[in-house]
Amino acid sequence: MKKGELVAFNGPGQKLELRHESVRDLKPSEILVKNEYTTICGSDLHTYTGARREPCPAVLGHEIVGTVVEIEKHHPGRDYIGQKIGPGDVVTWTIFSSDLDSPMAARGIPQKGENLFKYGHAQITSSEKFHGGLAEYCILRPGTGILKLPSDLPVPVAATLNCSIATAAGALRLAGTVRGKRVMIFGAGMLGITCAAMCRDGNAAWVGIADYAEQRLEKAVAFGADHVVNLNVDRIVDTVRDRFGSSGVDVVIDMSGAPDAMEAGMEILGIGGVSVWVGAVFKTRKVQIDPENLIRKLITIKGLHNYNFEDFVDGYKFITRNWPIFPFNSIVEKEFDLVHAEDAFEYALREKPLRVGIRIN
Amino acid sequence: MKKGELVAFNGPGQKLELRHESVRDLKPSEILVKNEYTTICGSDLHTYTGARREPCPAVLGHEIVGTVVEIEKHHPGRDYIGQKIGPGDVVTWTIFSSDLDSPMAARGIPQKGENLFKYGHAQITSSEKFHGGLAEYCILRPGTGILKLPSDLPVPVAATLNCSIATAAGALRLAGTVRGKRVMIFGAGMLGITCAAMCRDGNAAWVGIADYAEQRLEKAVAFGADHVVNLNVDRIVDTVRDRFGSSGVDVVIDMSGAPDAMEAGMEILGIGGVSVWVGAVFKTRKVQIDPENLIRKLITIKGLHNYNFEDFVDGYKFITRNWPIFPFNSIVEKEFDLVHAEDAFEYALREKPLRVGIRIN
Repeated sequence: MKKGELVAFNGPGQKLELRHESVRDLKPSEILVKNEYTTICGSDLHTYTGARREPCPAVLGHEIVGTVVEIEKHHPGRDYIGQKIGPGDVVTWTIFSSDLDSPMAARGIPQKGENLFKYGHAQITSSEKFHGGLAEYCILRPGTGILKLPSDLPVPVAATLNCSIATAAGALRLAGTVRGKRVMIFGAGMLGITCAAMCRDGNAAWVGIADYAEQRLEKAVAFGADHVVNLNVDRIVDTVRDRFGSSGVDVVIDMSGAPDAMEAGMEILGIGGVSVWVGAVFKTRKVQIDPENLIRKLITIKGLHNYNFEDFVDGYKFITRNWPIFPFNSIVEKEFDLVHAEDAFEYALREKPLRVGIRIN
Repeated sequence: MKKGELVAFNGPGQKLELRHESVRDLKPSEILVKNEYTTICGSDLHTYTGARREPCPAVLGHEIVGTVVEIEKHHPGRDYIGQKIGPGDVVTWTIFSSDLDSPMAARGIPQKGENLFKYGHAQITSSEKFHGGLAEYCILRPGTGILKLPSDLPVPVAATLNCSIATAAGALRLAGTVRGKRVMIFGAGMLGITCAAMCRDGNAAWVGIADYAEQRLEKAVAFGADHVVNLNVDRIVDTVRDRFGSSGVDVVIDMSGAPDAMEAGMEILGIGGVSVWVGAVFKTRKVQIDPENLIRKLITIKGLHNYNFEDFVDGYKFITRNWPIFPFNSIVEKEFDLVHAEDAFEYALREKPLRVGIRIN
């Protein structure tokens, strides 16, 4: 029986534990992947610090690139867009798997479908151990969206596809076309700068981005933002009013999760505007909405959690075209190996880079 | 020069004033209509009591049916759906006119287009006097959506088409298809019961409606509601939980304008649910939204003010088919003539009927 290393997360404040475990045999339609590279997402950090609870012990890491080792014979041997896959092919896959014929999937929300499973969020049990990115292997279940990666796409860039890039693509889908529109983005982390690049790629008329962190704002310009502001609500409202008057902006995308930002968004949106909320996947104070303002301006607010297969494919198309155009190659600011995963988390918390990468040998 | 009666509203707390005024000549593409029937809308009552300010003196009343008297020669002589119109034809028309080639109109929001004019909301000036329902005549401007009415459609029912019925059609458009869905409606006034009937007509799986007024709730059943509840937030949430568990309802439509109701809507919506806010066209306290709930459930909130031409036509198609099926003939609970318009307002405020009608001879 094949064996492999995994890094167990035993709870906030506890040391990550390197374990040597057996890889179980594949069930029908499963695929065994040898993980090559995992980037650590903001939500991994939330779990690591205890801001979010997951069942422990768990294997964290869901932004993963790996190489196909074995495909169980019931699997059709094609990826989500119909490309043939076989042993040796480099792939990434959706953060979740779920029943493809569930009612939620039919409504375009497979990320909330029946038998939902999320990679990098699951407990290590006696039978299920390899289901996250901080491990040598990952077993892909049926109902996972898999994409074969082009050989020229850098692996650290590809690792972020299945979380931040696909989620940003989902936010853009909810925003509707951005062509010729004014877009304000709150939060200049991976999600925000990816949105900025997508808006630029989609020929938005103006892309503003706001954050508290100066260093992130500097980077945002390289990712397509026309205008960056410190995340001070009054300054944001003034900036938009000075530039566009009462017609405001057409689209607001909140990746910050800050109620102040979501509220500022309602002030700066013009008639028929859309606000997409993505960032607040943790407890915050309530957001105060003036319903008369929302109604008279015919504003729409849309919430997005994770993404669907369409977004994953849109993200793939975006990044394969755009990674050389915007500095996606610079998002991983430091790399670690699997045995130093804890150093990677500590570095990420201390230095707040866009991403740290774990190279798995 | 033609002369006619009009009822001037000089401000809250002041007597309505019957005036005999000259009707000016038509400008290019205008149409002169002899008003036959006007229903008094909730927003007219808001203006009458001072809850909402309009420039005075004004001609109130925008839910109007009239007979074409004269069509200026530059008008194409067709209504919005291409039916020929000429003197003697009975018509109703959109609450607004605006530039049909404005950017807002192109975005499907002509009710916020350039050169917006709203019937029943405008000031009486030396040149512009006949632009509301509480008058013998109304001059229809270019950029007004006009519809010729079938002869069997009762005039009191037709009068409500251009406000509550078209607005309800707009709310249903924003909700998306209701076929097979569970819909909760807040507010059992004209807008709410019309929505209930539209949901039933659209094969919704379940239609709930909530209001404070018991007499309105009784009526709501005849308009297609499956379940009615007193507008007590806890009871609403319990009712939905008992019936549907955590899957909740698919659509919430708020016609009440009550922040409690809009907040309850967020609790009872299931994953992927849509909440359409229409009622709060006046100052209220802020609505408290938990962004994490909105995001994790992928909820959408959409604001609607007035309606567009598509909604007006959808309302027309709905009411011409459905006025004999649901008791729309009973919505006007008392009729007055134009000289007793003040009695009509006082009756409406005191008795709170769905509508009072003004028959104009």
